[in-house]
Amino acid sequence: MDKKHLRTLLCHVENGDLKVDEALERLRHLAYEDLGFAKVDHHRCLRQGFPEVIFCPGKTTEQIVQIAQRMADTTANVLATRTTPEVFAALSEVFPDAEYHELAKAVVVNRDQTDCGRGKVLVVAAGTADLPVAEEAALTVEVMGSRVERLYDVGVAGIHRLFDNHDKLMSANVLVVVAGMEGALASVVGGLVDKPIIAVPTSVGYGANFGGLSALLTMLNSCATGVSVVNIDNGFGGGYSAALINRVQLEE
Amino acid sequence: MDKKHLRTLLCHVENGDLKVDEALERLRHLAYEDLGFAKVDHHRCLRQGFPEVIFCPGKTTEQIVQIAQRMADTTANVLATRTTPEVFAALSEVFPDAEYHELAKAVVVNRDQTDCGRGKVLVVAAGTADLPVAEEAALTVEVMGSRVERLYDVGVAGIHRLFDNHDKLMSANVLVVVAGMEGALASVVGGLVDKPIIAVPTSVGYGANFGGLSALLTMLNSCATGVSVVNIDNGFGGGYSAALINRVQLEE
Amino acid sequence: MDKKHLRTLLCHVENGDLKVDEALERLRHLAYEDLGFAKVDHHRCLRQGFPEVIFCPGKTTEQIVQIAQRMADTTANVLATRTTPEVFAALSEVFPDAEYHELAKAVVVNRDQTDCGRGKVLVVAAGTADLPVAEEAALTVEVMGSRVERLYDVGVAGIHRLFDNHDKLMSANVLVVVAGMEGALASVVGGLVDKPIIAVPTSVGYGANFGGLSALLTMLNSCATGVSVVNIDNGFGGGYSAALINRVQLEE
Amino acid sequence: MDKKHLRTLLCHVENGDLKVDEALERLRHLAYEDLGFAKVDHHRCLRQGFPEVIFCPGKTTEQIVQIAQRMADTTANVLATRTTPEVFAALSEVFPDAEYHELAKAVVVNRDQTDCGRGKVLVVAAGTADLPVAEEAALTVEVMGSRVERLYDVGVAGIHRLFDNHDKLMSANVLVVVAGMEGALASVVGGLVDKPIIAVPTSVGYGANFGGLSALLTMLNSCATGVSVVNIDNGFGGGYSAALINRVQLEE
Amino acid sequence: MDKKHLRTLLCHVENGDLKVDEALERLRHLAYEDLGFAKVDHHRCLRQGFPEVIFCPGKTTEQIVQIAQRMADTTANVLATRTTPEVFAALSEVFPDAEYHELAKAVVVNRDQTDCGRGKVLVVAAGTADLPVAEEAALTVEVMGSRVERLYDVGVAGIHRLFDNHDKLMSANVLVVVAGMEGALASVVGGLVDKPIIAVPTSVGYGANFGGLSALLTMLNSCATGVSVVNIDNGFGGGYSAALINRVQLEE
Amino acid sequence: MDKKHLRTLLCHVENGDLKVDEALERLRHLAYEDLGFAKVDHHRCLRQGFPEVIFCPGKTTEQIVQIAQRMADTTANVLATRTTPEVFAALSEVFPDAEYHELAKAVVVNRDQTDCGRGKVLVVAAGTADLPVAEEAALTVEVMGSRVERLYDVGVAGIHRLFDNHDKLMSANVLVVVAGMEGALASVVGGLVDKPIIAVPTSVGYGANFGGLSALLTMLNSCATGVSVVNIDNGFGGGYSAALINRVQLEE
Amino acid sequence: MDKKHLRTLLCHVENGDLKVDEALERLRHLAYEDLGFAKVDHHRCLRQGFPEVIFCPGKTTEQIVQIAQRMADTTANVLATRTTPEVFAALSEVFPDAEYHELAKAVVVNRDQTDCGRGKVLVVAAGTADLPVAEEAALTVEVMGSRVERLYDVGVAGIHRLFDNHDKLMSANVLVVVAGMEGALASVVGGLVDKPIIAVPTSVGYGANFGGLSALLTMLNSCATGVSVVNIDNGFGGGYSAALINRVQLEE
Amino acid sequence: MDKKHLRTLLCHVENGDLKVDEALERLRHLAYEDLGFAKVDHHRCLRQGFPEVIFCPGKTTEQIVQIAQRMADTTANVLATRTTPEVFAALSEVFPDAEYHELAKAVVVNRDQTDCGRGKVLVVAAGTADLPVAEEAALTVEVMGSRVERLYDVGVAGIHRLFDNHDKLMSANVLVVVAGMEGALASVVGGLVDKPIIAVPTSVGYGANFGGLSALLTMLNSCATGVSVVNIDNGFGGGYSAALINRVQLEE
Repeated sequence: MDKKHLRTLLCHVENGDLKVDEALERLRHLAYEDLGFAKVDHHRCLRQGFPEVIFCPGKTTEQIVQIAQRMADTTANVLATRTTPEVFAALSEVFPDAEYHELAKAVVVNRDQTDCGRGKVLVVAAGTADLPVAEEAALTVEVMGSRVERLYDVGVAGIHRLFDNHDKLMSANVLVVVAGMEGALASVVGGLVDKPIIAVPTSVGYGANFGGLSALLTMLNSCATGVSVVNIDNGFGGGYSAALINRVQLEE
Repeated sequence: MDKKHLRTLLCHVENGDLKVDEALERLRHLAYEDLGFAKVDHHRCLRQGFPEVIFCPGKTTEQIVQIAQRMADTTANVLATRTTPEVFAALSEVFPDAEYHELAKAVVVNRDQTDCGRGKVLVVAAGTADLPVAEEAALTVEVMGSRVERLYDVGVAGIHRLFDNHDKLMSANVLVVVAGMEGALASVVGGLVDKPIIAVPTSVGYGANFGGLSALLTMLNSCATGVSVVNIDNGFGGGYSAALINRVQLEE
Repeated sequence: MDKKHLRTLLCHVENGDLKVDEALERLRHLAYEDLGFAKVDHHRCLRQGFPEVIFCPGKTTEQIVQIAQRMADTTANVLATRTTPEVFAALSEVFPDAEYHELAKAVVVNRDQTDCGRGKVLVVAAGTADLPVAEEAALTVEVMGSRVERLYDVGVAGIHRLFDNHDKLMSANVLVVVAGMEGALASVVGGLVDKPIIAVPTSVGYGANFGGLSALLTMLNSCATGVSVVNIDNGFGGGYSAALINRVQLEE
Repeated sequence: MDKKHLRTLLCHVENGDLKVDEALERLRHLAYEDLGFAKVDHHRCLRQGFPEVIFCPGKTTEQIVQIAQRMADTTANVLATRTTPEVFAALSEVFPDAEYHELAKAVVVNRDQTDCGRGKVLVVAAGTADLPVAEEAALTVEVMGSRVERLYDVGVAGIHRLFDNHDKLMSANVLVVVAGMEGALASVVGGLVDKPIIAVPTSVGYGANFGGLSALLTMLNSCATGVSVVNIDNGFGGGYSAALINRVQLEE
Repeated sequence: MDKKHLRTLLCHVENGDLKVDEALERLRHLAYEDLGFAKVDHHRCLRQGFPEVIFCPGKTTEQIVQIAQRMADTTANVLATRTTPEVFAALSEVFPDAEYHELAKAVVVNRDQTDCGRGKVLVVAAGTADLPVAEEAALTVEVMGSRVERLYDVGVAGIHRLFDNHDKLMSANVLVVVAGMEGALASVVGGLVDKPIIAVPTSVGYGANFGGLSALLTMLNSCATGVSVVNIDNGFGGGYSAALINRVQLEE
Repeated sequence: MDKKHLRTLLCHVENGDLKVDEALERLRHLAYEDLGFAKVDHHRCLRQGFPEVIFCPGKTTEQIVQIAQRMADTTANVLATRTTPEVFAALSEVFPDAEYHELAKAVVVNRDQTDCGRGKVLVVAAGTADLPVAEEAALTVEVMGSRVERLYDVGVAGIHRLFDNHDKLMSANVLVVVAGMEGALASVVGGLVDKPIIAVPTSVGYGANFGGLSALLTMLNSCATGVSVVNIDNGFGGGYSAALINRVQLEE
Repeated sequence: MDKKHLRTLLCHVENGDLKVDEALERLRHLAYEDLGFAKVDHHRCLRQGFPEVIFCPGKTTEQIVQIAQRMADTTANVLATRTTPEVFAALSEVFPDAEYHELAKAVVVNRDQTDCGRGKVLVVAAGTADLPVAEEAALTVEVMGSRVERLYDVGVAGIHRLFDNHDKLMSANVLVVVAGMEGALASVVGGLVDKPIIAVPTSVGYGANFGGLSALLTMLNSCATGVSVVNIDNGFGGGYSAALINRVQLEE
Repeated sequence: MDKKHLRTLLCHVENGDLKVDEALERLRHLAYEDLGFAKVDHHRCLRQGFPEVIFCPGKTTEQIVQIAQRMADTTANVLATRTTPEVFAALSEVFPDAEYHELAKAVVVNRDQTDCGRGKVLVVAAGTADLPVAEEAALTVEVMGSRVERLYDVGVAGIHRLFDNHDKLMSANVLVVVAGMEGALASVVGGLVDKPIIAVPTSVGYGANFGGLSALLTMLNSCATGVSVVNIDNGFGGGYSAALINRVQLEE
């Protein structure tokens, strides 16, 4: 409820068009809902097609379905991450057009496929074992309404594979770089392009990898500029930030 | 050197317009300079006014001045970070219009002040002790040609100070959130806005802060979406990423 | 055995009312039991209804039942934490009125439900996955004789949900704040209320969460005052401290 | 602004007693100031004599004096922690009755010495080197209006020194236990008393102490109940929590 | 082979009593076996009854049996640690008098029960969950020929239980203190006795215990003197060191 | 494509022997393939018999087989590490002469057994539990065409076993030292030989071993010269580096 | 106060030889002083010549002198560790026969030089930089009344230097092994001797040494038996434990 | 003393050519000096010109000079690392031809400049701040008798600078890669060349660099093969290993 609406409401009270009790009731939610910056509302009114996301770990199938049912009326696109075939089966009853992406372990409902992005988001992944995280990022980008391109298996151990795809690299508006082990790929890509890069370290590796710590530190200490980092294995977070950056342009 | 230029060159050889040795010389740099994605060149031709940045720690004053002299012809804006009054004095001889920002410990030459950004970058800082990092971020944004606004001293311990500025928060195109201690500010801001946030943890704190580790982990684990993170105390990196995101729109 | 009792005993010896050997026997336990600060005794005499608590991990069902049998005569309320349905079945034979709380994985015997607290303890939890820890805290508070209120699913990513409940927050005498991931909730609540807060970090999260380390460090570095912290996932400890604080008033 | 005030305001608008624009102006601050739970206000109205605290590290003397000047009218008691004789000299001009406590490195203005506590707060310290932190805690308790008692140099290496003071231990309403090295004192005290304990680990030690990590982990893992923990060397935080717990009783 | 033997050998060569080739053969092992400090030999000749120990993890049952067979002739006592009933069954065929200690997960052959110690080794354990490690220590002491006494369940949370046993504490010649969680027991015992203490941290605990790190650091930083530490859960190492200290006296 | 080839190509264009489009096509791959330092090509032409290696974790059996099929034509030797009997069964269909090494969990195809090394690589292992890693190293050396010798079970606890094999130690050209627990073997061997040592820490151990961190730090801090280190449990990496060092001599 | 004394006291009360108030007064200290296990008393009566030790860091010169003055009457030997020439100057006024050991940074008063040990304590040090810690250990042993021998500069990088001294190694009753960097010396010595070893890691080293963590972990994970460990750089603790072990024999 | 010498000696005794006492004296050193693998001797006889190295930290100038004097007769080349101009001045008196390398903080005596290497060692460094470590490595290589080439300031942020030097990269026999911050350079170089790489992480960086930990973990987890790692900032160790690898070929 912005200033204009507030003035109107007060005028109605002044005019007697609105009872004090009714006005009171409307103002009761003022503490948060009407302040204009509660995220959910804001999203709902400004950005049709914005997805609801369910992070599944630690929730029962029943809880997930309940959340899904609540959102079934108001949302076009849905993304459930780190889920299982069982959850997919249950979600399918609420969203018959849901799809299960096995590699990303994600359930996707992608009804509204309007392109809300200005450019293309490129998801770059170092190795085969990084694909589940990379795919979670790519699906997130898609569900949020941006075009996504994939460039996989281009780790720095065979750096020519990366350079062979420099057109792809240069044509992206935002990049998500997914890498485990030592995570050097983010620095190398960061040295080649001049677009924002969201780096996603993965827990792929062993020993002194310490569950992804190695790649995480590499990316945080990147000597290349324009690289910012999300949590280990957080493909969703990487894709979300990238899509947010990519759609910035459309919102004015 | 893209395909078109390469074809032209070869045609000139075919026609005899170009000697083999000359062609050879031109191709000699092909390995990197002409591939079209070497960053420096790319920047130089596509983006007039893009700053050169000198990270001073570990460099002697002499080295810094040499680097500055090399760039004096080709660059409009210069940023030297983590520097000293002594370095400033030396840089002033190369760049007489250089300014020293004491809080940020930065030397700035900001000749080209064209607004290259689409919106505004908001730098949010939690406490007084975080200001050096926040100012480094803000200066970086400015030198890179984006408008910057500052919102300081709004830590979550007095959360009403943050809410009093929700207009500022909502009007930014990109946000840089700078916080030390527990770094919770990034999550709270992330829960309020739907724009990309670059979180910069600072080493402000003591004890179990472990030199900024606490704020860093907080930001990486943020339950709010759209938050990505740079290194501890890396105000420059936060400002750079934010400015890059903000100018994305202008580059097509 | 305080000074008064000791004098009496000595007088009895002086008077010949008490044989030296008998006095000796009584003094034999002096080293600990009669010093007046041995915890078990103290509790037994001063605070009827104080529960005995069995922390089950690392104990066999048989050991747990033996401990329970020993306390069956002298205790009204019992709390067994981190337990299993099997243990519950076995405990039911000793305490037929025991109840199993599945979410908290706790067995509770709550015969004496006298309200020993001055005010209300509010257990606040950030997310659905934090509920097992939060419920362990809430049950502990109840079994220790304080009224408890619950405020769940109010993580800072949707901070309006928290503000909508400010009445609840303001009406509590002590608060237990349970949060995983980045654990920012403790700082935000700490910035809103001026009552003691026991913060309980949980291991909910992944990657750079490092098994709850992230939330733990956040809470220890909280910029809000009045926040003290217990071990990761230690719902029992959080509830115990809170109940202890809340019943302080009644003990003089 | 609670419901009653809001209704009155609306009635005034209905009656024409209040212009829409005036009402609008009053509601403008609604977002935070009038919600009734902004901490500063709340404190100011409910608790006269509550101190303002200035954490000095990272602030210039000039900044500290400015903050002090702002609070000079409205506050009775002031505590400036981790400060220096220079800062004290400067603060003395604003608060001529300020005192400098060298051991605690604190400046204290303690005009309002009303006893707001119900019982006594006991600050227990293990060794001589822990005294600066212990004194910071004790001063904090005093400035916040609770009686404080000190029990120093009672580390577990000579545990009889602790037991010799069991009267002191048993007579406290809340305890602050300050210890470095291995920090075992908190567990031992926790096993003796049944009052809330705030444990403050210190960085006293060397080697595998890792800057206080050892004592911190000890206290977090305490097998004794009723122990909660604040940051390493955070005497202020320990004292604040303890005073808050101790004054809980007076506030209803 | 010490100097005296060497001289004799050379004299035999000089006298012709020993052929060069025979002498050569005898000297062939000189590089290590005859140097006099190779451990195995030394043990064999100096200390009848010294046990051989098999650390089972990472070895197949077959490998364990082979090792056992090799030692069957020359050793009286055997200890196999961290083993299983399956391994016990297999070892029983080589050592029909082997016994399986379920709590300690150890197989013991204790044929030679001569008391080689001067005093008594006391194994002190904090909680029920620490017993497997404590029992491993106690069995090791026994097999190595020292008398052992056990004092279990005397954690510092109920410190009177410890003090009730001060006779036991004072009568030991060496102590092994086994504790998990915060491991404070080692410091408290160290403050009471003036005998050597081997502290054994256990991995019992959760959260900020970090797999025993908490107890380990506590013990390393102990403010009590005379405490030295072995690896987490290393009951064998603790018992071995204690028995070694206890038998020192007999070896001259 | 080196300078000579490039000149020739340009001459052909000048002479009309080569069409511009053909030349263009040839130059198209210049970005990487023809630069002469793309690893795969280089290997193929310079070193017949160099193995392809498949690191199996994180790859499905299907993916592994596909990779194997692609390489079946061009490679003589194959090594698949950290694999399973199932994968072996599948690989056997592509490489009927594949062998499964159970201890090393590796599948090996070793058709080309030319000795490409100048000397011998010695793999030294401390304990029985280190053998899987040591065998992975030894197999890697063999498949890469160097002779390998094994020296196992020579941990420093019985240092005479090591000295008894000093001939083996002295005769090696390169050494791989594999050790878990405290990893001291690398330093001791490094103090004896003057040949390059690749140290491989293993995760064998428990408690304060922290998954191999202990051995890793030991090896990195070795006071002996000539020791460099690879990742924990990285037998393949240790063997690869050693074989690379050993075959250096043959390549000129 | 043991049972016999207690019976006597009670008899005196029974007989009227002792007034109740007097008896009461005597029993008043019972809580600790008379329990018979308070360390200070015990030492004073049982072991003449036992030193008092002052750990100087965190204490002012004034405090140190005060402590020294208190002990001047009752103690023969004094050890002040980690001290300075200034402190030495001040201590000399209380103890004119004090000596300053520059390398160990220790002040020693060694009046009572009775040999209370059964054998010899050998302090073994790896490198020159470890000597300050080694000397602190050696001085501690001496002041506590045991003979000490030194074996320095025998790091494992030149392992023959160690073997050349095997007589020294074999003749010690207890060993203190001091080593920084990777700390392998403790394991090697542990593999050679069968006497108790106290390992003292030092902070000598750099980089991945992490302030002594590397040597600490090495020693805790030692594959050699009979090795227990004290804190990093804790030469005093190592010497104290060794002397305690060495004098065990004399105390019965 | 190998078998042949031993037989001869025994024969001389048999023949009466050698007295028993003389033979005894010769055998007396057998324990180490004559075993044939004591490093110092071995070096002296096999490799004239091998340098002695003095690691200066923790040694007094006096100690350093003494060590230098002892080696002045027998050594041609000397390297003193991490030293100062003061030490240089003192060393100059022993070695008048010593030179001080300011950047590397090393004193070098390089009399014997015979090329003992088969190929060239290339030292690659990422940034200007890495040069001290890189120069220490390069000097070490030179003093050990291998040719060295330098390739500096080729960090991955501007990867074309690296590719422009591929000839240098390809022509090296061994490479030392020195990098701080995220240390990605080692992986990239490892992906380009097929020669052994010694990676040296540096402590250059800040924040989440954690004193070089970031670069260290990156290099240990490198996805490129043939990379092994030495300690943080250990330029000497990197150079030593590289020179050792490079001279391997000459020693047979």
